[in-house]
Formats: sequence, structure tokens, C-alpha cells
Amino acid sequence: MIVKGFKASGIYSGIKRSKKKDLALIYSETPAQVSGVFTTNVVKAAPVIIGQKKVNSGRCQAVIINSGIANVCTGKQGMTDANEITKSLAKELKIKDSLIIPSSTGLIGAFLTSHLSKIKKSMPDIVNSLSETGIEDAAHAIMTTDAFIKMSSKKIKIDGKQGTITAIGKGAGMISPSMATMLCFVITDIALEKTTQDRMLKSAVNDSFNKITVDGDTSTNDTVLLMSNGYAGNKPIKFNGRNYKKVEDALNGVLSDIAYKIVEDGEGATKVARINIKGTKTIKDADKLAHTIGTSTLVKTALYGQDPNWGRILGAAGRAGVKFNPDKIDLYFGNHQVCKNGMAVMNEKKAAKYLKRKDIEITLNLNSGKKSSFILTSDLTVDYVKFNSDYTT
Amino acid sequence: MIVKGFKASGIYSGIKRSKKKDLALIYSETPAQVSGVFTTNVVKAAPVIIGQKKVNSGRCQAVIINSGIANVCTGKQGMTDANEITKSLAKELKIKDSLIIPSSTGLIGAFLTSHLSKIKKSMPDIVNSLSETGIEDAAHAIMTTDAFIKMSSKKIKIDGKQGTITAIGKGAGMISPSMATMLCFVITDIALEKTTQDRMLKSAVNDSFNKITVDGDTSTNDTVLLMSNGYAGNKPIKFNGRNYKKVEDALNGVLSDIAYKIVEDGEGATKVARINIKGTKTIKDADKLAHTIGTSTLVKTALYGQDPNWGRILGAAGRAGVKFNPDKIDLYFGNHQVCKNGMAVMNEKKAAKYLKRKDIEITLNLNSGKKSSFILTSDLTVDYVKFNSDYTT
Repeated sequence: MIVKGFKASGIYSGIKRSKKKDLALIYSETPAQVSGVFTTNVVKAAPVIIGQKKVNSGRCQAVIINSGIANVCTGKQGMTDANEITKSLAKELKIKDSLIIPSSTGLIGAFLTSHLSKIKKSMPDIVNSLSETGIEDAAHAIMTTDAFIKMSSKKIKIDGKQGTITAIGKGAGMISPSMATMLCFVITDIALEKTTQDRMLKSAVNDSFNKITVDGDTSTNDTVLLMSNGYAGNKPIKFNGRNYKKVEDALNGVLSDIAYKIVEDGEGATKVARINIKGTKTIKDADKLAHTIGTSTLVKTALYGQDPNWGRILGAAGRAGVKFNPDKIDLYFGNHQVCKNGMAVMNEKKAAKYLKRKDIEITLNLNSGKKSSFILTSDLTVDYVKFNSDYTT
Repeated sequence: MIVKGFKASGIYSGIKRSKKKDLALIYSETPAQVSGVFTTNVVKAAPVIIGQKKVNSGRCQAVIINSGIANVCTGKQGMTDANEITKSLAKELKIKDSLIIPSSTGLIGAFLTSHLSKIKKSMPDIVNSLSETGIEDAAHAIMTTDAFIKMSSKKIKIDGKQGTITAIGKGAGMISPSMATMLCFVITDIALEKTTQDRMLKSAVNDSFNKITVDGDTSTNDTVLLMSNGYAGNKPIKFNGRNYKKVEDALNGVLSDIAYKIVEDGEGATKVARINIKGTKTIKDADKLAHTIGTSTLVKTALYGQDPNWGRILGAAGRAGVKFNPDKIDLYFGNHQVCKNGMAVMNEKKAAKYLKRKDIEITLNLNSGKKSSFILTSDLTVDYVKFNSDYTT
């Protein structure tokens, strides 16, 4: 898990009523090269707006993340509050404020203002707690209603040099009362050319976090940051150059692992289903079909009920905004075909037995082209509704 | 309720295991002028494909509807089965088969084939049962998991002539196991010019059935038919001519009434919420926002929890694919403003009290234009998930 030149910590600063850890710090001994991917939601949290600007400089030495309050729908005050936190940390770390990115997750519409003095007072504590193994404490401190921490790490050899990619993440849907956000922070000692790093992160996010859904809701705070400090000592990785594929696979692996854990931890979820779409004319069509099926409440409740109710999958496919010939559709639960040329061929006992698994694979083939895509989704359960309708304020 | 020149009936023909009514007939003494609006789902039921063709002729004298089996994903056999039913009825009624439209609702992927002999044997019974007041029996016979029948009627005077518009409908979401479909059959004795009738129906459907959502799933069988036989004796209504507005208002009223009842009967629903969108640049933007908010599971579970969780509404608005300035947003629960210029101004007690009502009105104003739209939605409840995950096959 340890990444050379990086330290991290996680403490309780006084934001959460539960007194659980609520402030995390990730720190590189020297300024790291940073790439970021942020929420596409029009409504953006103050730290997201600030983070987007700071990432543009290309350099970042520290990320400070609070949980409990998302600092969104907070106007100018929200910006001031986020800046106050990084300024206070900059003094403590004796580095430039411009090298520190803030991040928040928690309640929408609440202000950090009344917590600022507590947070500032916690700065010596969180800096003194920094350690090479502190990333697990940081993973704890960024949780909101997550049931478990989410960490992933891969080591690879690059021309004889040892390189490590480690990520922590959080997210379990947008949760009551509006506990938002998917966050993921990735650190690596592998050196990468800047444009290659940007490109690699974007592509890895597209194949991991952009392929999961718990409730179809995109949070106002979603953030993925990749920091690389080059301490592995390798020659910077170039796009499609030597070792590129190896590093890309490792990054994809780490991000896919965190993404899977977010779906697994989906509110009330009992299943993780991978919906594969094949045989479309375009990737966009495959994405649309995967998203519509993966977010259909009827499909998700059928998964919960372990009900081989394939009509719901075809019904959802048909309203995805993609033209296709229903008479060419094949549908599989695992390896078991349930629908051929648009008509039932299901052995109901076999299909029902397959759906009792925790990890389910459903494959829809339009047989009309060569493109494909997928989505990971959770089931929609009684516990999901209970969680999200619980009046907790 | 009685519409001059129309008769209807509803009987049990042997399809449903519950032995409830499952076959409905609507009949006009003379061929009526017909307009239809059908599902936009790419996967279409056999009777929908046949109905679309027959509506194009402009004339229809009878509609025969079965519940229990949707006759979708049934290939050529499904077409043959649907045609068998109308042919058998044509003999019994001694009218042309081309004047009879078939319609089905129920289980996806099941065949009517094994029920055909029973249905054919029921033809004398359903024809003999026809009566001026039989529309209520028909309303019963088209139900699947609906908790109550859905009927609406309006009488208006047109230049001294009495005209009536009566509609029956069914629908409560797409239900376990894939019991699909929203159906609505409207009959009137008011004479209308054909293009005016088509236009009026399309517009009324757009303001009623296209503005409701229970689970965001469009069925494979959705059908709305309007039959007019002119028995009121009025001069045919022309677009934007004399009496046009009066008839349009009556039709809109009847359809909106049935649409409201479908949401009210939404699976497990305890609330009917009207989401108003105001101040957008285009109607399309307003529709997108209404649809995204109205289908958000987080918004729908908050409604169920009576939780004034307005952050979820802004979160959903932000991912609707509409550009807007979050700092100009106003949000209201009833008359109570909860968010002004994108920031909280909520009196939580007042807001929470308002949400205890059965009928809720939520208004989002972008303050960026003059267009508006709305959607009617139900809440997402524990009972919804229980209904839809129940393995009943």
C-alpha cells in the first residue's frame, strides 16, 4: 500500500455528530503532478469549483478532505470557507496555498462556517499524524454512510524499478439526508508525462466510475484525483510508449476495484450485477442501453427478488432511445440463454438458480453491430427505501 | 357516463387464474372515427403493431381488450393470435374485421395461443352483455394489478346539443411479473373533423399521460384510443373554430383525471406529487428537468419519508442535461420557499408539515426564461419494492 514519498492521515475534527473521523490529509514530500476528473452536475460544490482551478496548474502537494458537510448550495460563503481551510493548512505545512486542493462530502445545503474554528485548530494534529501507512485512516475519514472503507493498490515493475498505485474511495449512493458523493484519491510514485497522465486517468475513470450506478444520481461533489511524484525513478511514461500498457492496466485495475466496492456497498444492496451490452452499431448506443437497464427500478427490484423476469430488461431496452430490431435480440443470464430472436427460450429453474448468486452477469446482444459496453449496478431493496426515506435531520 | 351510440361490456373469459374479468369490449352502433397514440417503446406488443395499422384507416367500430397476457415478445405467433381474436369477434358482431382493434395488457413473453379457444367461445357472451352502462364492467376487465377502476366523464353543451366524453383507463406502473401497460379508451358522441380529432388527442395525451411517471418505465403496450361517432349531432368541431376550446378542455380534463388516478394507484404509492418547472429557456429543458426530478429515486424516497430534503431536488436538476445558473434557482414546497438564489431559506418545521399532505406541489424556478412544464409522480415506498421483487411465477 505504501507509495514512496507520500504520507496520509485521518482524524476527528469535530464536524460529525457521531464523533467518527471526518478530516483526511494526503501529502506528497514534494509537489506532485496532478490530474483530476470532476462531477458533470451543473450544481457544483464550492471545493469542486476551487479544485478544478487548482488542478489546471498541474501541481498539487496536498489534498484536504472533510466528510459530514458537502459545502454545496452555499454560494460565496462556501468558497470563503473552503479557502480558509486550505490557507490554514498551508501555514501548518509551510507550503503554498495554491498547492493544496480541498474536497468535501456530506450534507447538501449546510455551511462549514460554524465548524471552521474547530477545523483550523485540528491542523497541527492532522499534520503531526501524517505517516506512510496513514492512508487507511484517511480512507476512514472520508466515509459518510459507507459500510466499509474502500482501498486498492497494485505494485508493478517498470524497467527494474518498483512502482505502486494506491487509491482510496468513498461512496454508496447519494444518501439520507443528501449525503452525497463519490470521491477517489489515487497516489503513485510512477513518473508519467503530464498529457499521458491526464489521458490515462480520463480513460480509466470512463471504464470504472462512469460504468457504475447505484441510484442513477450524479452527485454535486464527485471528484477523482491522481497525484504522481515520480519517486519510483522510472523514465516518465509516454502515451503508447514502453510500459504504457502495464501502467494503464494497473491504474484501470485499481479504479475498477474501488468502483466495484462502491456498488457492493450500494445502500441496502445485496447484489452486484454486470449488464453487458453487445452487438450495437455504436458505443453510445451500448452505453445508453446499459444505463437505461442498469437504472430501471423494475430491473433492479427483479434482481432483488431473484426473479428471472427478462421482459423487464427488454422493456427497459426498448425505451433507451436506441433503434433496434426486437426480433434479433438474444439475452443471457450468465451462460444461460433466456431469450433468442426476441422470444422466450428460458429454462426457468436454471435461470432462477443463477440469480441466487451475489455477482450476476446479464448479457444483451442486439446482433446488429460490433460495439459493446457495460454497467455495474446494485439491486433495489426494501432497505434502500428505508435508508433513503428515513427522516434523520 | 353514457355516450350516445356506444355500448360496452366486460366478462371473465378464462385467461386470469384469479377468475376476475379479463375481456372487455367497446362497441359503436356505427363505425366511429378513430385516433390513436401508441407506445414509443421499440419493443411493441403484437396488438399495438396491428392497432397502429388499423387506426390509419380512420374508422373503428369495436375495440376488444384482454388482460392477463400482454402478447409481446411473441413474434409471428403473437400476430396470428391477435388476428384470430378480432376475426372471431367480427363474425359474432357481423362487421368487418378491419373495423376491430385488438389490445392486450399483462405478462410479457407469454402467448395467448393456449387461451384462444376459451376466448373465441366467450364471443357470444361478451357481445350479448353489451349495454349502454357496460363501460364500468369494461373498466374492471382491463385491470391487471390496479387497485381500483379508472373512469372519467364530462358532459358539455355544443350549440344546444348535449355531448359526452367518457374514458376508462388502467395502469399502476409496470408490475410483477412484468404486468405492463397504461391503456386508455375514450369514447365520445361529439362530431369532430378528423385532423382536429387527431391533433386534439395528441395534445391532450401530451398534457396528461406524457406528464406522469410511476417508475420511469414505458410499457410495450401503451395505447390511447379516441372514438367519436357524432351522435350528438353537432357540426363537426374544427381546429381553433367555434366550440373547439370547450371540447379540448373537456378532453384534457378527462385524460388528466385518468392520468392522476394512475399515479394515485402507483404501486405502493402514498403520495401524488406535482413537480412544476418554471423559468426555463425552452419547454424541452423544462420537460427534461421535470422528468429527471420526477424519476429520481432519491427524490421519490424523500417524498415517502416526508423529508424536506431539497438538496436531492437540486442534485437531480443538475444532472438533467440542462445548463443553468445554480445561483438563480428558487425552490418551493407548496407556497413555502425552501431555497432562494441557490441557497437554503427553509423553515424546516413548515416544510416538513407541508410534506405530510397526500397531494404535494413542488416548484423549481430557474429564473432564466419564460417556459414551463410539469410532471406528476408518486413516491417510492417499501411496498413498491416488495410488490416488484415478489417472485410470483
